[in-house]
Amino acid sequence: MSLTALADALGSSRLVTDPDVMDAYTRDEAHLATPGRPLAVLIADSAEDVVAAMKWATAHRVPVVPRGAGSGLAGGATAIDGCLVVSTAAMRTIVELNAADQLAVVQAGVVNADLDGAAAEHGLMYAPDPSSYQISTIGGNIATNAGGLRCVKYGVTRDSVLGLEVVLADGRILRTGHRTVKGVAGYDLTGLLVGSEGTLGIVTSATVRLRPRPPREPATIVGSFGSLRAAADAVAAVVRAGIGPSLLELIDRATLAAIDEWKRIGLEPGTEAMLIAQADGPDADEAATAIERHFTEAGADFVAVSRDPAESAQLLEIRRLAYPAAERLGQCLVEDVGVPRSRLPEMVESIEEISRRHAVTVMTVAHAGDGNVHPTFVFDRLADGSVPDAVWTAADEVFRRALDLGGTLTGEHGVGVLKRRWMALEVGEAGLDIHHAVKAAFDPLGLMNPGKGF
Amino acid sequence: MSLTALADALGSSRLVTDPDVMDAYTRDEAHLATPGRPLAVLIADSAEDVVAAMKWATAHRVPVVPRGAGSGLAGGATAIDGCLVVSTAAMRTIVELNAADQLAVVQAGVVNADLDGAAAEHGLMYAPDPSSYQISTIGGNIATNAGGLRCVKYGVTRDSVLGLEVVLADGRILRTGHRTVKGVAGYDLTGLLVGSEGTLGIVTSATVRLRPRPPREPATIVGSFGSLRAAADAVAAVVRAGIGPSLLELIDRATLAAIDEWKRIGLEPGTEAMLIAQADGPDADEAATAIERHFTEAGADFVAVSRDPAESAQLLEIRRLAYPAAERLGQCLVEDVGVPRSRLPEMVESIEEISRRHAVTVMTVAHAGDGNVHPTFVFDRLADGSVPDAVWTAADEVFRRALDLGGTLTGEHGVGVLKRRWMALEVGEAGLDIHHAVKAAFDPLGLMNPGKGF
Ligand SMILES: Cc1cc2nc3c(=O)[nH]c(=O)nc-3n(C[C@H](O)[C@H](O)[C@H](O)COP(=O)(O)OP(=O)(O)OC[C@H]3O[C@@H](n4cnc5c(N)ncnc54)[C@H](O)[C@@H]3O)c2cc1C
Ligand SMILES: Cc1cc2nc3c(=O)[nH]c(=O)nc-3n(C[C@H](O)[C@H](O)[C@H](O)COP(=O)(O)OP(=O)(O)OC[C@H]3O[C@@H](n4cnc5c(N)ncnc54)[C@H](O)[C@@H]3O)c2cc1C
Repeated sequence: MSLTALADALGSSRLVTDPDVMDAYTRDEAHLATPGRPLAVLIADSAEDVVAAMKWATAHRVPVVPRGAGSGLAGGATAIDGCLVVSTAAMRTIVELNAADQLAVVQAGVVNADLDGAAAEHGLMYAPDPSSYQISTIGGNIATNAGGLRCVKYGVTRDSVLGLEVVLADGRILRTGHRTVKGVAGYDLTGLLVGSEGTLGIVTSATVRLRPRPPREPATIVGSFGSLRAAADAVAAVVRAGIGPSLLELIDRATLAAIDEWKRIGLEPGTEAMLIAQADGPDADEAATAIERHFTEAGADFVAVSRDPAESAQLLEIRRLAYPAAERLGQCLVEDVGVPRSRLPEMVESIEEISRRHAVTVMTVAHAGDGNVHPTFVFDRLADGSVPDAVWTAADEVFRRALDLGGTLTGEHGVGVLKRRWMALEVGEAGLDIHHAVKAAFDPLGLMNPGKGF
Repeated sequence: MSLTALADALGSSRLVTDPDVMDAYTRDEAHLATPGRPLAVLIADSAEDVVAAMKWATAHRVPVVPRGAGSGLAGGATAIDGCLVVSTAAMRTIVELNAADQLAVVQAGVVNADLDGAAAEHGLMYAPDPSSYQISTIGGNIATNAGGLRCVKYGVTRDSVLGLEVVLADGRILRTGHRTVKGVAGYDLTGLLVGSEGTLGIVTSATVRLRPRPPREPATIVGSFGSLRAAADAVAAVVRAGIGPSLLELIDRATLAAIDEWKRIGLEPGTEAMLIAQADGPDADEAATAIERHFTEAGADFVAVSRDPAESAQLLEIRRLAYPAAERLGQCLVEDVGVPRSRLPEMVESIEEISRRHAVTVMTVAHAGDGNVHPTFVFDRLADGSVPDAVWTAADEVFRRALDLGGTLTGEHGVGVLKRRWMALEVGEAGLDIHHAVKAAFDPLGLMNPGKGF
């Protein structure tokens, strides 16, 4: 394997082989995935160098693991032995920001928050806002079809990607999509690549859709409930009424207790769940009042509405503290099932039951308006560093329950390595066959991120 | 080719071989496409019978042409010699309408308007509304990724499809997607199948998303403009302001003149373009006032706002008359290019220039809020029944101009047979290769709707 040949073919991109430096590029935020040892890490700074790398990888049959910021929670960017890691994180140029057509052309390494910030200068926003928006890259967001808090109103990453520039396994450049809002010439290859977890090609740049930024700060509504069922009823009522909140989050008792223990938020004894909603846009006030009413009618013990930005930010902070509060208590496995919205209470109750039965701490938050539930399994590693069996057993039951309820294994984090063994349960045998055939259509040698996704 | 074997394998579906009856199933609304002579037409009434048909077709290497209502404008459902036409139009059962989860499960032959009507009984709507909504089927809408008037606010068919049941070429059943709003387990096969024009498999049923029906009748705003440029400026201003109209249509002078000649709508001499907009939802009144102001500021000669349902319907009727008004004047080729919204005036001006230069009548309407432009070429067939060369020459120039402006060959009608020869221009060589490889992944024998799409 002549790395020199690769180095010679590159322009100004960096090729790293120092094991200590490489180490940081072998793992993501899925701490349960075990990384292999790469041959080298390419820190690409141009599509041309990615082309050179893929030509070299194809010639030498070297597997390639694409990565962005490494914030993934499914192990999609976990290195494997003998691979070339290709990081697009250094490709951070916003090539074009076109306010008239409400679109931007960005390199894959542009950080989500940087794009949104640039859009804000034109009164626009880049809607998909994973909680990792300050670190994760557009390339990674695209490869995982990332969701976020405001996707209940504005859709997931897929809904904001118009076109892609992708380097295929053999080094050819594929351009998909267009600069128009609509377009049906040929297969939707853009949509197929979104969420493909680096298994079909390396995204080097993207044309993304921007939207008008809501003119004012959103109104924030908080409600606390004496039962999960009541909170879920409130969610259902808000969804049914077509109010279109821009955010609708549920936090369970275990999470609230952990946050309260840490930050003293004044949790009342009877509180079993909290909902946080926001409404933006021209009818935000009307919507906030309606949401408040639905919370009350569903039996909230307490409801508060804030139109003050500072206070709103404080209320949202409670939601943001969920993950760090869990991390204080031990090792975390952040899960990500989705269910039809009417099945939300059953799902959350099942999670509590499974948690009790296996004596595994589980703290749950949900993007309730989407039915996307994040149970975080909190545990201590065993003396030998391994994960207690009960954790995976409990997770297995949670996955199967989500599927039984008509749901999905993963609402937004992806399959990566951690959830591969459940994939057949969700997509079926014919589905798996088609996955393999589609993969082979793009990557006949199987070099792109092998072992990930399915 | 033993048709008896097929007949024996079927349940209660109808197998037609009478040439006169078959004739109606050989063509769609693309009158320029020349149909072949099918072996037989299957009027399927169950997924099982479609499975039987595909197993038979695979065993005997018989090409299959799927069809719904045959309202397509690109020739996608045009029969080819020796094929089996499989019509799903008789599979008209709404299997489930779930108001709590805002979704429906429908067979492929359910007519768009029937689904929307059933949803309305629950205060919901099926958003995608192609102008053919009273005849076209959900299966056909899915296979073409149909757009419609309200897709400027609610998205195209793709945005309302959650999952599919598809019979593959070899007769296996593939189930894609889920009943949840979000989900990222594996490739987005649902999205890949939407818009695939029957080339990857036969859709037998679909899980579709419903949305809350706007509580009141929309407000309607009409403006007439002395120049295309002024009308386009008004569109740009409305889009930029983030008002989110539920409909935003442009009608050019040629179309208005044809309608006026027929229906006497009182067209003023200086009018070069008319815009029709609607606003729905809780902030409809505010939005209508804002749209009115943007029309005026952009230089409209005349603006009127109506909140009266009957009057609104009358105003919208002008838009609906565009196509029949063109049909009165001759044979029609309805085209469907898309451009970034800022390029709308250039596109419409280019169409006028091309029309003049080739002395071909072209009447243009546009889903202006999406940049989707429908120039209708109106002509008389030559004595031998053929299409004058000037028509295709002019169309060719229109397509190339759209691509030059960063646009697409087809915003919503699809490629079918009529636009195949331009596909390489839009998707490129690597893109075409990937199309063929993806096609082979689903349909290695090339039996599904050969000769369509790319
Ligand atoms: C605190 C925290 C909060 C989070 N919140 C959310 C959330 O709200 N919603 C959500 O969806 N996710 C969330 N995540 C998960 C993660 O941030 C997202 O999956 C994100 O999209 C990953 O982006 P990244 O740049 O870090 O990609 P990486 O983690 O580096 O890679 C992710 C996947 O994409 C592939 N990939 C990366 N770049 C490319 C490229 N250029 N071309 C092809 N493939 C590529 C990798 O191979 C891998 O499979 C969160 C993570 C953390 C740590
Ligand atoms: C007056 C008029 C107005 C129109 N307005 C619009 C509009 O506003 N927006 C728009 O997008 N289109 C419009 N169209 C075009 C047409 O109505 C749409 O393309 C529609 O989606 C076609 O549906 P259909 O059931 O008639 O399908 P067909 O015309 O029968 O078939 C269309 C394509 O889908 C495939 N297909 C059909 N059923 C299946 C199935 N079950 N499985 C797999 N493939 C299948 C066929 O092979 C073909 O390629 C209009 C047409 C007319 C005549």
